Amino acid sequence: MDALTPATTEAGADRTKSLSRRYGAALPPHGPWNETIAGLLDHRSVRDFLPDPVPPGTLETLIAAAQSAASSSNMQLWSAVTVDDPATRRELARIAGDQKHIEQCPLYICWVADLSRNERLGAAEKTELEALPWLETFTVACVDAALAAQNAVVAAESLGLRTVYIGAMRNDPVRVAELLGLPPRAFVVFGLCVGTGNPATRNEVKPRLAQSTVLHRERYAATAESRDRAAYDSEMAAFSARNDMQATTWSQRVLNRMGPLKSMMGRERIRGALARLGFELR
Amino acid sequence: MDALTPATTEAGADRTKSLSRRYGAALPPHGPWNETIAGLLDHRSVRDFLPDPVPPGTLETLIAAAQSAASSSNMQLWSAVTVDDPATRRELARIAGDQKHIEQCPLYICWVADLSRNERLGAAEKTELEALPWLETFTVACVDAALAAQNAVVAAESLGLRTVYIGAMRNDPVRVAELLGLPPRAFVVFGLCVGTGNPATRNEVKPRLAQSTVLHRERYAATAESRDRAAYDSEMAAFSARNDMQATTWSQRVLNRMGPLKSMMGRERIRGALARLGFELR
Repeated sequence: MDALTPATTEAGADRTKSLSRRYGAALPPHGPWNETIAGLLDHRSVRDFLPDPVPPGTLETLIAAAQSAASSSNMQLWSAVTVDDPATRRELARIAGDQKHIEQCPLYICWVADLSRNERLGAAEKTELEALPWLETFTVACVDAALAAQNAVVAAESLGLRTVYIGAMRNDPVRVAELLGLPPRAFVVFGLCVGTGNPATRNEVKPRLAQSTVLHRERYAATAESRDRAAYDSEMAAFSARNDMQATTWSQRVLNRMGPLKSMMGRERIRGALARLGFELR
Repeated sequence: MDALTPATTEAGADRTKSLSRRYGAALPPHGPWNETIAGLLDHRSVRDFLPDPVPPGTLETLIAAAQSAASSSNMQLWSAVTVDDPATRRELARIAGDQKHIEQCPLYICWVADLSRNERLGAAEKTELEALPWLETFTVACVDAALAAQNAVVAAESLGLRTVYIGAMRNDPVRVAELLGLPPRAFVVFGLCVGTGNPATRNEVKPRLAQSTVLHRERYAATAESRDRAAYDSEMAAFSARNDMQATTWSQRVLNRMGPLKSMMGRERIRGALARLGFELR
């Protein structure tokens, strides 16, 4: 199905519905479409899971999808650590500000920016890896881990499972690394809850900023931004009201989340934590 | 199709073939499977494109997929800038060490870790965003951009297009930012070429490390690593020979790529470049 598929056909109507949920009134032009793309558009983060275990082999399929993502120079600077032990889950949930879904979800995967593996390779081959201590290499490892994890999310959702990323692992990276027995120069960028979403909990697709704010051609231009933001604030206020969230605009959420230092939940200390974990970040 | 689908059925044989291309002899246990997952497993980076333009609306569909990825606290800390102008493409290709596919591909998208938008919001609302100058927030923006871009890659590949990430935009982030007219506190994490792969160029799925090296349960354990690495070195040497690449093992590639500082192509200077772009990285 492509851009020429009329919106009046069933397929065209599905496309319009998907885009409307994501953009409200700020519909982008219609383009090519298929079921995989419809699945991507249907993403919503879920924080309430049924206790049902995921089917056998699901983890291995998600990891195969993750490893199929691009990796910078094929250095493969990431690892994954799953946690089943209830006591460890409880401690991870506590670090994350008591996010109960970390204890509740049937599958919890920590995604690790991992320079340690290639460092061991260098040691075994008696070669110092001069690229290790740099901010660049840390950034590559975080990006590698993110590309991999997102493929796992796409795979999970294609199987009817739901997910939520847990950035709050970075509230205390040193303690998280201890709990998982990470070697030096390995760092949990984020966790990921995977499972079957509880159908009793309402969970709408969340609207995003208009494409005219996010997408630029040739040169960055913020010309549409104020107008788009006002419209998006209305969309998000209505979304929040429908979903039993504190009914504020997106602008207010940004101000709440990025304004006061205390909203960082200690994550402003990540540089010191990374130093303790062996990341020099030159 | 799930883990119980026998490998002797047609669907089971496809799954085995996909996993074999990715892992060689180190096959993980069979798990659930479907066409979306088969598409993820089929990824290969492509560096030779036909001149055919992408169908109308493709860019907007890719951006809709990208915006549907999770975003930390819905802060949406990324933007995309497309480049069509041939002179700009040439300059970007030069920065990237003369990667001709940057000039050749019909669609080139730069993915921006973008703190500037929310900073403008704060300024408009007369609120200082205390979370801006921290390494944590920079990391979140890079991860947000990576999750978004990977969704765009999955969408593009589902439409039969091919892609390659261009990390070499980081060879000279200041010049790239100038070329795209980025405001302060915006940084191109990587570029992405999108187009129809040239069918005349051989482009196999690249094998990855065994899951026993990458995936850990409860605690990180490198016990399988040496054995896995020897097997993977053989796989990659054979892959390289088949694909007209310098026939070396993966271990040798890691040593070449991460051993000497000069292999970083100037990216060890990224911290200074980020400082010039307005990222304090406290």
